[in-house]
Amino acid sequence: MASGKPASGEDSLIARYFRPLATDPGAFRLDDDAAALKPDGSDIVVTTDAIVEGVHFLPDDPPDAVARKALRVNLSDLAAKGATPAGFVLTLALRSADEAWLKPFAAALGEDAAQFACPLLGGDTVSTPGPLMVSVTAFGRVPPGRMVHRSGAKPGERVMVTGTIGDAALGLAILRGGKVHAAASDKAVREALIGRYRVPQPRVAMAEIVRGHASAAMDVSDGLAGDLTKLCGVSGVSAVIDLVSIPRSDSAQDLVSRGVVGLETLIAGGDDYEILCTLPEDRVEAFAQDANRVGVAVSSIGTIIAGSAVPKFIDGQGREITLDRRSYSHF
Amino acid sequence: MASGKPASGEDSLIARYFRPLATDPGAFRLDDDAAALKPDGSDIVVTTDAIVEGVHFLPDDPPDAVARKALRVNLSDLAAKGATPAGFVLTLALRSADEAWLKPFAAALGEDAAQFACPLLGGDTVSTPGPLMVSVTAFGRVPPGRMVHRSGAKPGERVMVTGTIGDAALGLAILRGGKVHAAASDKAVREALIGRYRVPQPRVAMAEIVRGHASAAMDVSDGLAGDLTKLCGVSGVSAVIDLVSIPRSDSAQDLVSRGVVGLETLIAGGDDYEILCTLPEDRVEAFAQDANRVGVAVSSIGTIIAGSAVPKFIDGQGREITLDRRSYSHF
Repeated sequence: MASGKPASGEDSLIARYFRPLATDPGAFRLDDDAAALKPDGSDIVVTTDAIVEGVHFLPDDPPDAVARKALRVNLSDLAAKGATPAGFVLTLALRSADEAWLKPFAAALGEDAAQFACPLLGGDTVSTPGPLMVSVTAFGRVPPGRMVHRSGAKPGERVMVTGTIGDAALGLAILRGGKVHAAASDKAVREALIGRYRVPQPRVAMAEIVRGHASAAMDVSDGLAGDLTKLCGVSGVSAVIDLVSIPRSDSAQDLVSRGVVGLETLIAGGDDYEILCTLPEDRVEAFAQDANRVGVAVSSIGTIIAGSAVPKFIDGQGREITLDRRSYSHF
Repeated sequence: MASGKPASGEDSLIARYFRPLATDPGAFRLDDDAAALKPDGSDIVVTTDAIVEGVHFLPDDPPDAVARKALRVNLSDLAAKGATPAGFVLTLALRSADEAWLKPFAAALGEDAAQFACPLLGGDTVSTPGPLMVSVTAFGRVPPGRMVHRSGAKPGERVMVTGTIGDAALGLAILRGGKVHAAASDKAVREALIGRYRVPQPRVAMAEIVRGHASAAMDVSDGLAGDLTKLCGVSGVSAVIDLVSIPRSDSAQDLVSRGVVGLETLIAGGDDYEILCTLPEDRVEAFAQDANRVGVAVSSIGTIIAGSAVPKFIDGQGREITLDRRSYSHF
C-alpha cells in the first residue's frame, strides 16, 4: 500500500482514501513498502482473518459494514488473547476501483481504527476477477508470556461467555429469508439481529480482564459448541454445558420460546464474536465484577471436566442433546 | 489457522499440511487463534503482499511455484527494508480443499520458510468461489529506527540495483506466447526466464548490507522505471539513469540485440524482485564489496539529481527516451 509520485489508479486511490487513516508514525504515511512496530518489551500478538464476499458477508452488505466486520473479527481475536490493539495491515482484493464503494469503506474503517485505537499501518490493494476479499492482520501487545491460550482449561473450572449467543446466526437467517424472517415480524428486532451479524462488537474492553483471570480463552466465531470443543481439545479436557444458562437476547429467547428455532441453532451458528473462557472457581466473582465495570455482561454456562469426550450439552430436563452440527467449516 | 478436536475439513487440512511448518514456538503449533513475536529490542518490520490467480500468477502455474512466489515477494520487501526475516502469517483463499494442489504447495512453502529462516506463525484458510488468492504478511527485525525507507535519497547519490532487470517480464511474455516466445527458441533460455517470473530470488542476504549503506531502498516489483519514480517522489528528488548500464542477463541482452524487445520492456515490466537503492558516492565501493561477499552482483545505473521531475532515462546515444508505461498498476 505504498504510493509515490505517479498517479496510477492504485496509488491515487490509496492516497485519497487510506492515507488519512495512517496516523501512526510506524505507518510512514503509507509511503513505504513496510511498517514498523516499536519494541516496548511486550510480546506482539499476531492474528489474521479474512472475509470473502458471498462467504463471510453478503454481496449487498453495505461497504461500511464490510469494513467494520473485517477489522472487528480480528479485534475480537486480540481481545480473547488478552492483547491490547496496536495496529493492523489490510489486503483488499477488488474487482474494480469503485469509489462509491471505497469511500464509505475507508471512512468506516477509519472510524473503527480510531474507536478501538488500532491504526492502519499498511497494506496491499490488488485486483481480482472474483469476489471481493478483505484480509486483515492485526497486532496487539501483552506483557511477555501473558497471551491467553486456548489450552490451559483445567477440570473443575467454570466455563464463561460474554454477551449473548446466537443473535448473529439469527440475523443471517433473517437476511436469507425463510421461517426466521417470517417469524421475526418486528422491524426493530430484525434490524438488531441483522446488525449483530453484519457488525460484530469485539470485546476489546475485556482484554486486560481476560488476561488477569482466564486460564484459557478464545473468541466465538464459528459457533459456541464447535469453538468450545476446540478449546477443550487443545486443553485436553471435556466440559458439561447447561444449555438453559447460555445467555440469549430477548429476541433470541422469543424465537426459541415460540419454537421457531432450537437452542442448537444458537450454539452452532457462529459469528457471535463473544469471548469464551475458563476460570478457576475462585476467580469467577472478580471476573464478573471487572466485566461489569466495563459494561460487559458475563454468564457461567458450565464446568470443565476431565476426559477427552466432546463437551456435553444438557437441556432443562437434564437430558444430553445431540448436535448434528457444531460449527461452521469452510470445506 | 487454529485447529482443535473435531476433524472438520478445514481443521484436518491445516493439521496435515501446515502444522509441520509451524516449528517456531511463537506459532503455538497453530493450535491457537494468534501467534506471538517475542521482543528483543528490535523494531518489527511488517509487510504484506497478496498474489491472485490470473493476476499475479497464471492458473496453470505449479502449486510449489505459487507458494514460493507468495512468500518470496514479501521476503524481497523485507530485504529492501534492511530487515532480517522473523516469520509470516498466511491467508489462503481456496475454491476447494484439493489435496493434489495443497500438498506440493505446503511442502514448497515449508522448504522456503526453512531456507530463508522465516517460519510460518499462523494464518487463515477460507473458501472462495473465485480465483485462488494467497496473502502473506511477513515480519522482520531491524535495530531500532534502522528500517531503510523509500525516502532518504539525496542529490549526488548513486542509484544501484542488484542482479539483472527484465528477465521476469520476458518470462511472462514467453508464457503468453507471441513474438518473445517465438524468438526465444532455446528451451534452456525460455525456462530460465520463466523461472525468474514464477519463482523470484529475494535478496535476503542483502538485508544487512542495505541497512549498512543505503540512504533509500525498495524492491523492484512493479517495474524499475515506475519504482524508481516512486522512490524519487517520496524522497523529493529526481534521477538520471543510463539505460545501457541497466544490468541485463545474456538472454535478455540477446533479445534486445536482435530487436525482439526494447530496453523499455525490461524496465517497465515488473516482477524483478531485485533491490533498488541509493548510496552516497563514498559508500559505493564498500557496498559492492559486501554484496560480492554474499554472491550478489550490483550495478550502478545512474545518479540522483535535485528536482521533482520524473527520472530521465538516457539511451546509448545520449537521448532521453520516452516511456509509455512505467509500471504495472492494478486499476
